[in-house]
Amino acid sequence: MTVTDSLDTSTAQSPKVTFDREPSQYKHWQIAFNGPVATLTLTVDPQGGLVPGYELKMNSYDLGVDIELYDATQRLRFEHPEVKAVVLTSGLDKMFCAGANIRMLAQSPHSWKVNFCKFTNETRNGIEDTTENSGQTYIAAVNGTAAGGGYELIAACDELVLIDDGSSAVSLPEVPLLGVLPGTGGLTRVVDKRKVRKDRADMFATRSEGVRGATAVEWGLVDETAPRARFDDAVQSRAQAAAAMSKRPSDANGVQLSPLERTEADSEISYRYIVATLDRANRRVEITVRGPESSPPADGDAAVGQGAHYYPMQLTRELDDLILLLRTNENELGTWVFRVEGDPEKVLAYDKQLQDLSEHWFINEVRQYYKRTLKRLDVTSRSLFSVIEPGSAYVGFLLEIALASDRIYMLDGIYQDIDDDAEPAYIQLTESNFGSYPMGNGLDRVRSRFWGHDDDYDRAREQIGAQLFAGEADEYGLVTMALDDIDFAEELRIVLEERASLSPDALTGMEANHRFVGPETMETKLFGRLTAWQNWIFIRPNAAGPEGALGRFGSGERANFDVKRV
Amino acid sequence: MTVTDSLDTSTAQSPKVTFDREPSQYKHWQIAFNGPVATLTLTVDPQGGLVPGYELKMNSYDLGVDIELYDATQRLRFEHPEVKAVVLTSGLDKMFCAGANIRMLAQSPHSWKVNFCKFTNETRNGIEDTTENSGQTYIAAVNGTAAGGGYELIAACDELVLIDDGSSAVSLPEVPLLGVLPGTGGLTRVVDKRKVRKDRADMFATRSEGVRGATAVEWGLVDETAPRARFDDAVQSRAQAAAAMSKRPSDANGVQLSPLERTEADSEISYRYIVATLDRANRRVEITVRGPESSPPADGDAAVGQGAHYYPMQLTRELDDLILLLRTNENELGTWVFRVEGDPEKVLAYDKQLQDLSEHWFINEVRQYYKRTLKRLDVTSRSLFSVIEPGSAYVGFLLEIALASDRIYMLDGIYQDIDDDAEPAYIQLTESNFGSYPMGNGLDRVRSRFWGHDDDYDRAREQIGAQLFAGEADEYGLVTMALDDIDFAEELRIVLEERASLSPDALTGMEANHRFVGPETMETKLFGRLTAWQNWIFIRPNAAGPEGALGRFGSGERANFDVKRV
Repeated sequence: MTVTDSLDTSTAQSPKVTFDREPSQYKHWQIAFNGPVATLTLTVDPQGGLVPGYELKMNSYDLGVDIELYDATQRLRFEHPEVKAVVLTSGLDKMFCAGANIRMLAQSPHSWKVNFCKFTNETRNGIEDTTENSGQTYIAAVNGTAAGGGYELIAACDELVLIDDGSSAVSLPEVPLLGVLPGTGGLTRVVDKRKVRKDRADMFATRSEGVRGATAVEWGLVDETAPRARFDDAVQSRAQAAAAMSKRPSDANGVQLSPLERTEADSEISYRYIVATLDRANRRVEITVRGPESSPPADGDAAVGQGAHYYPMQLTRELDDLILLLRTNENELGTWVFRVEGDPEKVLAYDKQLQDLSEHWFINEVRQYYKRTLKRLDVTSRSLFSVIEPGSAYVGFLLEIALASDRIYMLDGIYQDIDDDAEPAYIQLTESNFGSYPMGNGLDRVRSRFWGHDDDYDRAREQIGAQLFAGEADEYGLVTMALDDIDFAEELRIVLEERASLSPDALTGMEANHRFVGPETMETKLFGRLTAWQNWIFIRPNAAGPEGALGRFGSGERANFDVKRV
Repeated sequence: MTVTDSLDTSTAQSPKVTFDREPSQYKHWQIAFNGPVATLTLTVDPQGGLVPGYELKMNSYDLGVDIELYDATQRLRFEHPEVKAVVLTSGLDKMFCAGANIRMLAQSPHSWKVNFCKFTNETRNGIEDTTENSGQTYIAAVNGTAAGGGYELIAACDELVLIDDGSSAVSLPEVPLLGVLPGTGGLTRVVDKRKVRKDRADMFATRSEGVRGATAVEWGLVDETAPRARFDDAVQSRAQAAAAMSKRPSDANGVQLSPLERTEADSEISYRYIVATLDRANRRVEITVRGPESSPPADGDAAVGQGAHYYPMQLTRELDDLILLLRTNENELGTWVFRVEGDPEKVLAYDKQLQDLSEHWFINEVRQYYKRTLKRLDVTSRSLFSVIEPGSAYVGFLLEIALASDRIYMLDGIYQDIDDDAEPAYIQLTESNFGSYPMGNGLDRVRSRFWGHDDDYDRAREQIGAQLFAGEADEYGLVTMALDDIDFAEELRIVLEERASLSPDALTGMEANHRFVGPETMETKLFGRLTAWQNWIFIRPNAAGPEGALGRFGSGERANFDVKRV
């Protein structure tokens, strides 16, 4: 039995994690502001690990470091509209970042490693999303060696400047030193984003000491090197140039990310707009999302006035937080059942505002954030179900939650026995569902649903604005099943029980394959191909076994490999 | 320790496999001919397994069944130009094919399962390639239940007709019954090729009894159902229609696939044009490919006259066979070092013929076959190196072997000490390298090499026909390294030693990621995402552990799952 496997059955190493952070409490990051340029400096507290058992030396990181980074990137987007470029650098001398902490990886259960990589991947994708869609460009000021996850972190930045000091290098030493892959996008970003030739990528990823100086530039691993004397200037001139291209407003008020109000009990996590009931006996979570209670504010500035309480913003924060908590802390709850309740008309009013004011910086940020949160759902290794019943509000942007689900069950009519006066539920497509919140593969979820059936896609699109009751929703292919109240509850019960009886691993692989039909992008390759390979390698004895490279790293003993290729 | 792991350390279950077959010896398949339509009938001999320990009941298959299928598809292409449609059917009543044999999977080491899936995937991709590029369309006459790998097999056909007899169904029961994925393209083909909606795909892949009748058609799982009385007519009318569209000649002579002449010793496998030296001490294979000895035949019909001895044909057969033998039997030899020797001018003459006569049916078949064989190389989990020295003939279509390699080392000049009179090697691009032999992702290997650098691609293309000696080859980015004879041998020795010291698993994941940059296709998704997920799931205790679904299948006991999601 491998180290990993033995730990995998224990929860000792998996403490309950929360994602609430705020800059004054950061242990590992500092933010400094200078007009349109902010600087995010990594100085990891070696004793500040999230879990006991390892020291975070040489700016190596664990999940806690990345949670702070995620918080910082969110605050820079929302609280600082004036920031148009972000410089990412290190507070240490000669060491930018040594990557994910090896001791932490070696002692962590497999599920922890996988979840850790997923979150760090999402944060890096978020950095790229900021650069692309928020006019806030990330520049890496690589003032020391960036190794492994350190290089993967800077590879998420738009421009990379490496100090030319005769020693600082970029490297991906995972393969030669640890017997695993650079699994946070490293391999993919090197060839697909940095467009490094495959044989050079091969040399880079097998050479533990990495590459520096002119070679790093020639191979495309960094954009520029600069000696110490010119380094700050080189970075600042890129940051200023990027800032000058930005369309972010210089004089707008930011939106403070006030602490999220969340109530937790053993079997419930609740927020203002979301309640999650943890049904441990049946190993599922019942998630109720509530629509807005009032009409949207008058305009973008009024939305800024509501700030973090602006309905789509608050809902997205709550959903984001819930997904992260459940993914990290509740991995035995394998099925998430969504219900969206509320007044469809009020949802539609917000939906319209999100569309009409998409050019407003804050509304744009909210849209991008909701898009990213839906993407988190898309790559979540849980079975996702949506249930549509009387009182539901699956319309416009909230319909995306159903479209992201593996299955959608819709009650045809009402529950006669429960509420004879209820109105049957309907769903409603809006322009939102056709491109505003694309998946990682670039497709909207309706296109993905009707992949290869453009006629069905067009037919659905023609229904924009129509109230589609169960029969029509079914006819247009927008729900999995529409059943009347005689069959509905029973069918749902059986389906959910069956789901809970299936192999969690097989479901994870199956869902990951079904959700991403059609084209692939760097993002889907990273969560699909790269992550799947990494998952596999992580549990092979050559990495995680007692004589594997991960366990033996730093011990002075070389790993003893089973040399068979598969 | 899991069943799989314990077997993985044994070679008892992995006999030496050869791929030489011929129809009169088939145990499991029958071929019948009727003008332009051939029928390939599967009647698996339950006692005819390749390995002891399991019975191939209900037309379930093992590698041996698939090796015969591969042989049959190749013979239909080469020996039967007159065959324009192939009907794939079953010789059993009510059972088309039960998929890969579960006992066989449960008793096989992980590496065997992975290699088995790779080969079966390649054979199915080959069937699609036949339909697309050879005018020989495969029609599945599904005269009984097609379960798991049985459905995956027919999903490789162009058209699927399912018998409507009240019981025969199509199904993918892997997830519900075995806790693994349908890993031979099932999940991918269902959504990406058959374009089944993801929630229906989800129902299909979690429902062990499958889908039949009108639902199977409505969901897109099959193209048509027909009752027994109309079944043969329905199949034949599709076969005749497909045949009528074909451009294959009706009156041409086929090319017999005469037995391949191969000599094997413990440390050598040799053919007429290829010699492979198995260097077990250093865990690598030195592969020398020899160019043609004479000029090409006058025209396409003369090439047919040479038949299986036509140089590009024979070379491809030898290379194909060698790849399969080494992959299956020699998984401790982790690095393959290629050298292509010969007279470049003679290679270029063949290269030109392959281009000029690409419309000739046989030349087309040879080109497609060479393309598929190079694709096998692309998905081979071994480190691939090419060495270019004096006497080499890396030109035109043979240069593809270097372009498929992870690294290319070229000697700059000659070995002064060894042969002072030698001529330095050059490489030469031809039109062949720009689209004739695309990778699975649809890119030619030069495009893949210069992904994102269209200027470098164009510059390379302008060099078509030029003899590029080491300095220029390096300057144009076509080799990894060009070194003179003072450094060359030493560098190569060190690099190969280092390679052999790395984790085989990490190398497999790394190479698979680097080789496929840019776009993805159904084929690359299948070898990348789906295979990687399947590899992972195959070694998880939930599948392969003592209480896992694979081991417990058929035992009457249910699997005991670790319910944690990762």
